[in-house]
Amino acid sequence: MSDIRVTVWGEFRHEKDSSHESSRVYPDGMHTVIAKNLNAMPGITARTATLDEPEHGLTDQVLAETDVMTWWGHMAHGDVDDRIVEKVVKRVWEGMGIIFLHSAHFSKPFKRLMGTGCDLKWREADEKARMWVVEPGHPIAAGLGNCFELDKEEMYGEHFDIPKPDALVFITWFEGGEVFRSGCCWVRQKGRIFYFQPGHETYPTYYDPTIMKVIGNAVRWTAPRPCADVQYGNFQPLEEIKKK
Amino acid sequence: MSDIRVTVWGEFRHEKDSSHESSRVYPDGMHTVIAKNLNAMPGITARTATLDEPEHGLTDQVLAETDVMTWWGHMAHGDVDDRIVEKVVKRVWEGMGIIFLHSAHFSKPFKRLMGTGCDLKWREADEKARMWVVEPGHPIAAGLGNCFELDKEEMYGEHFDIPKPDALVFITWFEGGEVFRSGCCWVRQKGRIFYFQPGHETYPTYYDPTIMKVIGNAVRWTAPRPCADVQYGNFQPLEEIKKK
Amino acid sequence: MSDIRVTVWGEFRHEKDSSHESSRVYPDGMHTVIAKNLNAMPGITARTATLDEPEHGLTDQVLAETDVMTWWGHMAHGDVDDRIVEKVVKRVWEGMGIIFLHSAHFSKPFKRLMGTGCDLKWREADEKARMWVVEPGHPIAAGLGNCFELDKEEMYGEHFDIPKPDALVFITWFEGGEVFRSGCCWVRQKGRIFYFQPGHETYPTYYDPTIMKVIGNAVRWTAPRPCADVQYGNFQPLEEIKKK
Amino acid sequence: MSDIRVTVWGEFRHEKDSSHESSRVYPDGMHTVIAKNLNAMPGITARTATLDEPEHGLTDQVLAETDVMTWWGHMAHGDVDDRIVEKVVKRVWEGMGIIFLHSAHFSKPFKRLMGTGCDLKWREADEKARMWVVEPGHPIAAGLGNCFELDKEEMYGEHFDIPKPDALVFITWFEGGEVFRSGCCWVRQKGRIFYFQPGHETYPTYYDPTIMKVIGNAVRWTAPRPCADVQYGNFQPLEEIKKK
Repeated sequence: MSDIRVTVWGEFRHEKDSSHESSRVYPDGMHTVIAKNLNAMPGITARTATLDEPEHGLTDQVLAETDVMTWWGHMAHGDVDDRIVEKVVKRVWEGMGIIFLHSAHFSKPFKRLMGTGCDLKWREADEKARMWVVEPGHPIAAGLGNCFELDKEEMYGEHFDIPKPDALVFITWFEGGEVFRSGCCWVRQKGRIFYFQPGHETYPTYYDPTIMKVIGNAVRWTAPRPCADVQYGNFQPLEEIKKK
Repeated sequence: MSDIRVTVWGEFRHEKDSSHESSRVYPDGMHTVIAKNLNAMPGITARTATLDEPEHGLTDQVLAETDVMTWWGHMAHGDVDDRIVEKVVKRVWEGMGIIFLHSAHFSKPFKRLMGTGCDLKWREADEKARMWVVEPGHPIAAGLGNCFELDKEEMYGEHFDIPKPDALVFITWFEGGEVFRSGCCWVRQKGRIFYFQPGHETYPTYYDPTIMKVIGNAVRWTAPRPCADVQYGNFQPLEEIKKK
Repeated sequence: MSDIRVTVWGEFRHEKDSSHESSRVYPDGMHTVIAKNLNAMPGITARTATLDEPEHGLTDQVLAETDVMTWWGHMAHGDVDDRIVEKVVKRVWEGMGIIFLHSAHFSKPFKRLMGTGCDLKWREADEKARMWVVEPGHPIAAGLGNCFELDKEEMYGEHFDIPKPDALVFITWFEGGEVFRSGCCWVRQKGRIFYFQPGHETYPTYYDPTIMKVIGNAVRWTAPRPCADVQYGNFQPLEEIKKK
Repeated sequence: MSDIRVTVWGEFRHEKDSSHESSRVYPDGMHTVIAKNLNAMPGITARTATLDEPEHGLTDQVLAETDVMTWWGHMAHGDVDDRIVEKVVKRVWEGMGIIFLHSAHFSKPFKRLMGTGCDLKWREADEKARMWVVEPGHPIAAGLGNCFELDKEEMYGEHFDIPKPDALVFITWFEGGEVFRSGCCWVRQKGRIFYFQPGHETYPTYYDPTIMKVIGNAVRWTAPRPCADVQYGNFQPLEEIKKK
């Protein structure tokens, strides 16, 4: 079996701003850290693409060669070209997996795929986040314990304005008193979608082995697999029926 | 309790074309038949709006005064102004009910709310359609038997490219050999959405009392009701917690 | 419209034990407090039934006259007669609503209806519990804010071993670091089921107006309503089809 | 990776009755045909067990060595020992996959796992059954077309009294006018459950390559896989929190 080909998409704006804390945490960008960690996993080959590359690094060829995309964006959602968004969404429907990380809840492709406002509560206050497993048999939870923690994360709180997840894998407890559906799965036509809450740009979240284990599990779960044929449009009665 | 205020939206193009069969079945438009039938139901007051009116008949005031909208469109989905679509979608998120009828599966607001391609198989062949109740306890099925029928309907067949319904109320059997999830419910934030398959423009579907009973039930089920408050954005810890 | 007839079922053992704290909090039993509060709500008439009455107070007549049952049990789940359990379960399938409170997660009728082990984590440590609304449009959340609190509750933590809820209305944050799906809905045939976590026997939970508001909302949501007819067994082709 | 170990459980009563048509279709029992076909698939090793063996062939050792069980029963559901049923159900919760075939909808372990009545409509009339794929991306639909057919099957019709499936993979169209949710998935704790409608004892259904392809896919989908740890019961606050 050949490797799962991942394209790690990063907005890569905060990290280039030397006045921003994230430039110290992720001097080469979050995407490079995520990609490096994924490349260390067996069966996964990751490359990167960023907003300021031509076509945001998502040419037709890159899209065609991508099995799973991860998406992180925050300050520049509006700079993403709608035509690229439509191409990404179409690829998801056709079977490409996609993993939305943290503030990508407000990214164009996530909102487009959800059909909801995707809003939530938030607070930057260096709070402990504890993620509890609520579907222990889900492949994305493979190898985890009851829960896992980050010492500091941005708080995201309910209500999270999304369609009911097809599977709810994690719920996060935040030190300051909130909860959040932090690991959510959806199927849209042939494509699988995972939203995963951790990853504020000023914390070293993507250096954390458990966080990366979850993302690796999610890459495997969202990766395309053999499907049934789908045919749409004008459809004549099947012969067996016609003959009757 | 005051009446549920319904706006019956109709594309109203086929019916104005005297060469089209639907001009004989619905000489004043499908929307007038639907609205008349709804107005005969206790607790419901219906008005109409159509594509070729200014702002498609969906001014801010009309939208503000609408509890539930029904939507039928077919040949002119592309003529619906995107700004109106966004207003309709926003109203749904805020709690306005919406019922998509038949070929509205390809309408802009339905596709926008679903986040999927919404495609399906179809065939115009005067086929019997039998709708089976698969969630007998659902309010939209109230008062029905095991199933109900239309002597002739356009066939719509699976795969129907939608998000998994939050409730699947009806599955239709078509004479020519296909099946279709013909009565589907979704909740999106505070709004309730129902898709109902029957209603090809050349058949007298909306004169059928059982079809209208279902639509009436759906008006009642999708109507806005008291909700919890929702707050989004930057959120400070609640005082009780702060004090600790 | 006539009142919703509620039977508040209570195990009523802890409260009769004068050495037990709950005998001070609920000297006449939790069930009497719940019933009194429900009786103060318009459109609801509540009576009580307890374990140590003949047939646990759930005679065929009582069951036939019950629209919605609430169930609280803890130390004596095993003393509930399996024949009564089967009668209760059958009534739920036929349309009787049922609300399981707190430790009723391990009651016989809940386990029977869920088909799972229904286990969870727990801790008695006087911890604050904050219940967040995650489906603000659900009728059980009507009139609530973003969240509501109890100053002290028993901690119940994930993983909660239940089938995926048809609707997840509340998630609770516990002071000690856990989360719990504390308001869960299921539909089983014509019957509606709600599980609600608060209600440890040593805390005055059922005197709390918001808790009772939720239970009142749940009574209204689980109450029987008109359904479609359901027919099972050997089934001949419908005449319309036969004739072809 | 070692083979998935399947135990094909068959009631094996009809087939031993020489006056019954199934004794001609399946002279050595349905279970032997299913097991033989599964053994021809790469990565699967199947054995059989039947009702009239000691402990129905399901000793503790057999259960411990079973990754996935398939279950067919019909006339003798009541002869299955409740203690064996409980052991099977417990194994499912722990992660053993289980596939219920045809009339096993009324088997003890299926009813126990569902918590519903599991009733349906039926008719033996040599009718064509056409199974449509409604979740084309589901692994159980891998490699199929839009639909597949059986020339003759027993009709099973809605309403099928089950909990809403976590995934609905197939809906069957029956020649005589009915529809049926014929391929349904549920997750219960760590275990995966699939119900598949085809397989009346007087038709050669389990010789059909497409039917067996679906069952093979279902074996792979229900097979146990790495999970998160689950801990239940009295739970002390995690140290990290305690220290605060």
